Amino acid sequence: MESQYKNSSNGGVESGVAVANKRKMRGWDVVLRFLALALSLTAAVVLGVNKEMTTVAVTLVPTLPPVNIPVTAKWHDLSAFVFFVVANIVACVYAAISLLLTLANRSGKKGITMLINFLDLTMVALLFSSVGAAVAIGLMGYEGNSHVQWKKVCNVFDRFCDQAAAALGLSGGASLAFFMLVVLATLNLHKKH
Amino acid sequence: MESQYKNSSNGGVESGVAVANKRKMRGWDVVLRFLALALSLTAAVVLGVNKEMTTVAVTLVPTLPPVNIPVTAKWHDLSAFVFFVVANIVACVYAAISLLLTLANRSGKKGITMLINFLDLTMVALLFSSVGAAVAIGLMGYEGNSHVQWKKVCNVFDRFCDQAAAALGLSGGASLAFFMLVVLATLNLHKKH
Repeated sequence: MESQYKNSSNGGVESGVAVANKRKMRGWDVVLRFLALALSLTAAVVLGVNKEMTTVAVTLVPTLPPVNIPVTAKWHDLSAFVFFVVANIVACVYAAISLLLTLANRSGKKGITMLINFLDLTMVALLFSSVGAAVAIGLMGYEGNSHVQWKKVCNVFDRFCDQAAAALGLSGGASLAFFMLVVLATLNLHKKH
Repeated sequence: MESQYKNSSNGGVESGVAVANKRKMRGWDVVLRFLALALSLTAAVVLGVNKEMTTVAVTLVPTLPPVNIPVTAKWHDLSAFVFFVVANIVACVYAAISLLLTLANRSGKKGITMLINFLDLTMVALLFSSVGAAVAIGLMGYEGNSHVQWKKVCNVFDRFCDQAAAALGLSGGASLAFFMLVVLATLNLHKKH
């Protein structure tokens, strides 16, 4: 209300520019929020349905031919992937709620704007940490590590790993969308005074 | 300069409150920045000097007693820990530079304030992702995972794991300090208008 009063007192032209700027900012805010929603939802689904069954040849007795044993890779076998899916579901639900709140809060009530700014930042922290955790475990599965004797598993579960990589990329996009939302809000606040 | 003009035109009492608030905010900003610097520096050093040599008993021939083989755990054996140390060094150097910039920028130049806000947010993203990655690998070392047949290593390298856990806790503190710096800057901007 205060800023509206200020704008109207500055004369028609400046007020017009301020209103146009505000609309442009709101437009970007809605686009980024929608993008964050779509990307985090897709990331959660892509990793959440990720499952691969395959067979590995295991030599039980050296004199006999190897036996094919069925093995399955599921996303919930690894706690980092569980954290990743949960974080993306939380981010997706929050993006939907905040999108509705932003559209409803046309008057720009300070309390709601501040709450949204804080939660956007929380999503940046949540998503970046979950992407970091999932990338660390994903890379270990892709490359393995001779020092701790953890063998790579992506040579066996190639489709599972490709799908996990796609989910990581999508969630990386959602993280950047939330990052940009915080940048946009700060720019918006800097412009106002 | 603009805000100073506004304050002086509002009369003595309000101007006094605004100046006191501004000083309080600056005080918290400096404290948090110093905390982020100290915590990220300590985290980088604690993990950076982390090295443990021990021996493991390996049975080479079933009929002979096991042989003790020396093994070493170093922080740069794991790429997630390398990322963690690098991220903490970057955060620590940035915290030092931004502390100097904040102390030098007493007039509150908009350009510098905006740059610092943006880089604080970048540090939140960087530190949270590096802590996420290091915690994921640390937990794997602590618990292991039967599905991918990665055995736990913390039963062998207990001191190494304790020191890594301490570094993770310290860096978690630094991440929260940067998080609070972004919150503080947003609150500050909201208060100004």
